[in-house]
Amino acid sequence: MKKLILMLVTLSVSSLSLWAQVGTWIWYPGDYEIWLGNEMNNRRTERGSFYPPYMWRIDSHFPIVEFRKGFNLAQADKISIQTEGTYNVVLDGQRLFGAPQTLDLPVGDHTLIIQVFNQKTPPTLLIQGQTIGTDSTWLVCGPDKKRLPEKGHDFAYLRAGCWNFNTPAQKPSEFKLSTTPMEGTLRQSEKGGELFDFGKETFGYLRFHGLKGEGKIKITYGESMEEALDWDRSETLDLLSVKGNQVTDEITHSAATVGEIYTHPQSKAFRYVHIACEGEVKYDKVSMLYEYLPSKYRGSFLCNDEELNRIWDVGAYTLHLTSRETFIDGIKRDRWAWSGDALQSYLMNYYLFFDQEAVKRTAWLLRGKDPVYCHINTILDYTFYWFMGIYDYYLYTGDSVFLEQIYPRMQSMMEFVLSRTNANGMVEGQPGDWVFIDWTDGPMDKSGEISFEQMLFCKSLETMTLCAGLVDQKADQDKYGKLASDLRAKLEPTFWNDEKKAFVNNVVQGKQSDAVTRYANMFAIFFNYISPEKQQLIKNSVLLNDQVMKISTPYMRFYELEAFCAMGEQESVLKEMKAYWGGMIKQGATSFWEKYNPENTGVQHLEMYGRPYGKSLCHSWGASPIYLLGKYYLGVKPTQPGYKAYSVTPVLGGLEWMDGIVPTPNGDIHVYRDAKSIKVKAAAGEGTLYFETEKTPKANEGELVHGSGNQWSLPIPPGKEIIVTLE
Amino acid sequence: MKKLILMLVTLSVSSLSLWAQVGTWIWYPGDYEIWLGNEMNNRRTERGSFYPPYMWRIDSHFPIVEFRKGFNLAQADKISIQTEGTYNVVLDGQRLFGAPQTLDLPVGDHTLIIQVFNQKTPPTLLIQGQTIGTDSTWLVCGPDKKRLPEKGHDFAYLRAGCWNFNTPAQKPSEFKLSTTPMEGTLRQSEKGGELFDFGKETFGYLRFHGLKGEGKIKITYGESMEEALDWDRSETLDLLSVKGNQVTDEITHSAATVGEIYTHPQSKAFRYVHIACEGEVKYDKVSMLYEYLPSKYRGSFLCNDEELNRIWDVGAYTLHLTSRETFIDGIKRDRWAWSGDALQSYLMNYYLFFDQEAVKRTAWLLRGKDPVYCHINTILDYTFYWFMGIYDYYLYTGDSVFLEQIYPRMQSMMEFVLSRTNANGMVEGQPGDWVFIDWTDGPMDKSGEISFEQMLFCKSLETMTLCAGLVDQKADQDKYGKLASDLRAKLEPTFWNDEKKAFVNNVVQGKQSDAVTRYANMFAIFFNYISPEKQQLIKNSVLLNDQVMKISTPYMRFYELEAFCAMGEQESVLKEMKAYWGGMIKQGATSFWEKYNPENTGVQHLEMYGRPYGKSLCHSWGASPIYLLGKYYLGVKPTQPGYKAYSVTPVLGGLEWMDGIVPTPNGDIHVYRDAKSIKVKAAAGEGTLYFETEKTPKANEGELVHGSGNQWSLPIPPGKEIIVTLE
Repeated sequence: MKKLILMLVTLSVSSLSLWAQVGTWIWYPGDYEIWLGNEMNNRRTERGSFYPPYMWRIDSHFPIVEFRKGFNLAQADKISIQTEGTYNVVLDGQRLFGAPQTLDLPVGDHTLIIQVFNQKTPPTLLIQGQTIGTDSTWLVCGPDKKRLPEKGHDFAYLRAGCWNFNTPAQKPSEFKLSTTPMEGTLRQSEKGGELFDFGKETFGYLRFHGLKGEGKIKITYGESMEEALDWDRSETLDLLSVKGNQVTDEITHSAATVGEIYTHPQSKAFRYVHIACEGEVKYDKVSMLYEYLPSKYRGSFLCNDEELNRIWDVGAYTLHLTSRETFIDGIKRDRWAWSGDALQSYLMNYYLFFDQEAVKRTAWLLRGKDPVYCHINTILDYTFYWFMGIYDYYLYTGDSVFLEQIYPRMQSMMEFVLSRTNANGMVEGQPGDWVFIDWTDGPMDKSGEISFEQMLFCKSLETMTLCAGLVDQKADQDKYGKLASDLRAKLEPTFWNDEKKAFVNNVVQGKQSDAVTRYANMFAIFFNYISPEKQQLIKNSVLLNDQVMKISTPYMRFYELEAFCAMGEQESVLKEMKAYWGGMIKQGATSFWEKYNPENTGVQHLEMYGRPYGKSLCHSWGASPIYLLGKYYLGVKPTQPGYKAYSVTPVLGGLEWMDGIVPTPNGDIHVYRDAKSIKVKAAAGEGTLYFETEKTPKANEGELVHGSGNQWSLPIPPGKEIIVTLE
Repeated sequence: MKKLILMLVTLSVSSLSLWAQVGTWIWYPGDYEIWLGNEMNNRRTERGSFYPPYMWRIDSHFPIVEFRKGFNLAQADKISIQTEGTYNVVLDGQRLFGAPQTLDLPVGDHTLIIQVFNQKTPPTLLIQGQTIGTDSTWLVCGPDKKRLPEKGHDFAYLRAGCWNFNTPAQKPSEFKLSTTPMEGTLRQSEKGGELFDFGKETFGYLRFHGLKGEGKIKITYGESMEEALDWDRSETLDLLSVKGNQVTDEITHSAATVGEIYTHPQSKAFRYVHIACEGEVKYDKVSMLYEYLPSKYRGSFLCNDEELNRIWDVGAYTLHLTSRETFIDGIKRDRWAWSGDALQSYLMNYYLFFDQEAVKRTAWLLRGKDPVYCHINTILDYTFYWFMGIYDYYLYTGDSVFLEQIYPRMQSMMEFVLSRTNANGMVEGQPGDWVFIDWTDGPMDKSGEISFEQMLFCKSLETMTLCAGLVDQKADQDKYGKLASDLRAKLEPTFWNDEKKAFVNNVVQGKQSDAVTRYANMFAIFFNYISPEKQQLIKNSVLLNDQVMKISTPYMRFYELEAFCAMGEQESVLKEMKAYWGGMIKQGATSFWEKYNPENTGVQHLEMYGRPYGKSLCHSWGASPIYLLGKYYLGVKPTQPGYKAYSVTPVLGGLEWMDGIVPTPNGDIHVYRDAKSIKVKAAAGEGTLYFETEKTPKANEGELVHGSGNQWSLPIPPGKEIIVTLE
């Protein structure tokens, strides 16, 4: 009985302390993200060899960070203090003895200042009390500013960065992605070993059950069966040495004592694995620990076309596999954060996970710290995508704090760009820059003033103008606004060619080149840089013109199809999606690829970069249908930051019906449409439904407004389903 | 018998591998030094609270470093590869599988490239073979440059940094200073506890023998007995909790299981320690682990004056205590690398340890990385001392590699200075700058153009001119040369006052201030910025003028006495040394102090910064006699870099005899002088002996040259003792 009472007391105290504590781990904004991203970016291997992003800038966290917060306590509080690093505490101007782990705070006004030093991992802080705890309202500064903690501060602090580390045990530097065990679907003898099929593209840690004996194990991973059966040429491999219960990873030399299960220390991408044992090694079976970012699938899409549903599912899975510590390009090769790929992942993410933290982590990592001495990922175009991604993030989420925090780095990045423009105010590739644009099947001239790069540059200047306005930087707003309008005014005179009815690819020494490529032309459409008349000219002279080099990456197909959608061509885009992404699925894809040329067959699809299995078969930029279906079919997009206002323009584009959800910061937007009705329900925000119909529609709620021709609109109030009957 | 043979074989193999291996741990130059220095700078505590140099810039190492070397093997070699960090190996353009720990290299030409990634500690590499190993001839680059390892390199690599980590077990990140056990000299009951006296100022880890029981231990450290007996006001404290064999450091919360000896985890400065136990805690005795940089005392000085001998010994010990991971200011408080203090430590070091590595480590740490956004230690004058320290280092050591490696950082540092000069081309303190100059007993105007700062600035520009020439940067040499001569030409017109026969302290808005301070006047003398006639004017109107505010820090006494020595006033300097430094010893000093005013008495000497024990009683800038005695009495100094040529000008300055050694990069210079003879023996270099005598001297060796008046000179050949008979 006595024991029972004791247990109850213990329980109630610990549950009290669980629910009563506020506070989350905080750090210098961007520093943890860069540190974590560096760890991720440096996990790539190529044929068993560590393969870092050695040509990129790689930054470090500040080794010392000062945290501060002023507050008023209506009731006394007892706080606990945890850090990663050596720390001190200054309370109300008084430097305290030691490094207090708890502190009693009486009622009234207080100021807490805590300095944390840590070279190994980012300095972090967790304070938890009943009413006071660390969060993003705390202020931080690094050693790039002079700080006089006892004497007040004389410059602008930043707000602390945080994520979801809410207990003392969840140390930010110990973050790991989630894992769950998974079994293979097929096991068969092949090539002197065994081949395992996990049924679809996956990612994680290979596991051996009942491993014993003495000898070597050769592990060949394959996104395709061909690759898994080709030890000599596959992209990723592992080699183990087994001796009794000791297993050594021959790549990293890490040794482990094996119990019932041996889990390989490195995670890999694969669908197939081939295991070949040398010597007297035996195992009972092979399984894996699937590794993933635990984001919730908030968006959805279902329609009468099963192929399209499958495309959406495979797209969603592709994006999930490539959403990790940050958004990355592909899971087999690179496994790096690339800005061009990231911009697309962000947009897809807004229609699937709406994971704001993943976007922010990626943006911090890509940008790195000051000063700027090279382009993001060294690529001219990727710098521009980075700017656009920041504004997109603000538009979809309404998170103005992040914008304020990152604005100084936008500014220094743009100053870098401006320091390298030519006499004409345009950008050209400089020594050390990579002008990427796209992987093309034919040659493309990248010299001189490239029309496409100027469009991105102009859009970036417009983005800077918008953002400068949002953070009240009037001088910047004027400056960038002027630069943007100057450049915008030059685009058509410089690059438009009346004869070709298109923007030419580039201008070298003042002379337009003969070549027309799709890039500038399609971006001009959805950037709205050109009149509707010229858009139609481009459609025929470029987009539907087979003489113009075709796009063979899903990366640029993303924008090509977006251009068509922007012109209301959902029907033809639907056919293209089925042909192109459906084509990959018909070729066996369980996630979408880095590059796909429908004219190729069989193993031709696996080759890239001159290597037989060089192509990534799970590449984030392959997942664009989830974006296109959400934005241009379900037709949902924010019209004010954070979906405070939004529009819904459902377009069937040839489907009989569709039913889907688009996530927003304040709940979901559910959209259904078939030939006879439209249903929309949204948790929050001021929405407007737009649709076309020939007959006069009816609505269960609100006032239908008849626009020009067949156009109608209807307000969508928060929390109520509106139903429009079309006939 | 069989066993014996086996042992012999084992022995011969392991000893073979010991003596046959070449190669030392290498890293990106400066990065390890900054990382190690950060660890050191962040060990300060003040009354039990972590006290970081929070107003300084604190830099991080590059997380990824690429190492490369091309070589030709006359015989095959087998190399071992060790790193701190994840790595890959590219041999002759071929990326190798895994992370090879050994490699067989056949005869012929090879290129090795190794990339190492490590965010926690600096990426380091050790390759050891019979003929090939890592050393300072390896090339390195960081992620601030684009690198294409397989495609050759298109920019200047730096040469690798290294020190003396020569075995796989000696990992650079695990470096610790040396320690040796030491016992106290006195133990007595005091103030409810026990007072221990270790006989002299010391530094290290306190140890308890036979610790047991349960309760707390309050430890009060004192450089003085008064401080050790004053728990409430002493600068450094420790608090332990003991429970059985568990001891917890209440400051860092580190817990340890105690055996026969408990060693405190933090090292402290003290002579006295007071131990007060609360509760049932007992110990048998207290001792310490003395912690030190294992530098050899190469320089020496002995003379007929016992007080002066004692001053030299205490000075040498003071410098040794403050020579740690880098040279620091003082061992009780700060324990930080300060540039003004460091310059003096360097100079003393050239006459004591000649520890080149300690100078380089300090210079790297002080400077940090690019870009420059504040002065070194935030202090205007300290930036200038840093420049001077680099050239001094080159002059004493002849190490042109270091000069080449650090020159780009000299350049960016000077560009920072130049970006902040006023319209008159002079420096003034800007917001965020600290204009320090000296701790003075009276007020000193630090506004406007301060004459002293312009002298340091001018000397720094001259230093840049010299260094630019040495590293073949012709354009820089011209630029800095012009700036130096322009500024030099302004010094007298701007600051000299004929009426005061002195440089005034400063000029505000074009108007000379009334105040004269010693600083600019004494620096003008040993910088040789002024005619011998004006030097004599200054001597009387400033240096010997009691109306001009006296100097009360050994820091500026260093330069004041140097100015006197430069004017040949060794006799009066000798008296001053005995009065000032002898005065400290009479007050009980066992190491020299941060500040000393002979007019104070008793506990007045302990006070500083408004705190009763605020003064550091072991401060590197207190040790200047070892420099003055070596350079101006034994009279040894290099006249060509690295003592390729040097001069010896022994001046007794009132002594009957003196006998000493001055270290050089290539061996020692031994100097003896009394009234009747001079003896010099040097291991290497082309020396010249200078002396004055009225009668015609005789020499055992070489041709005596008679200069003007009583001046004589004699060549000093390497390896032979020369003896000059003076009467």
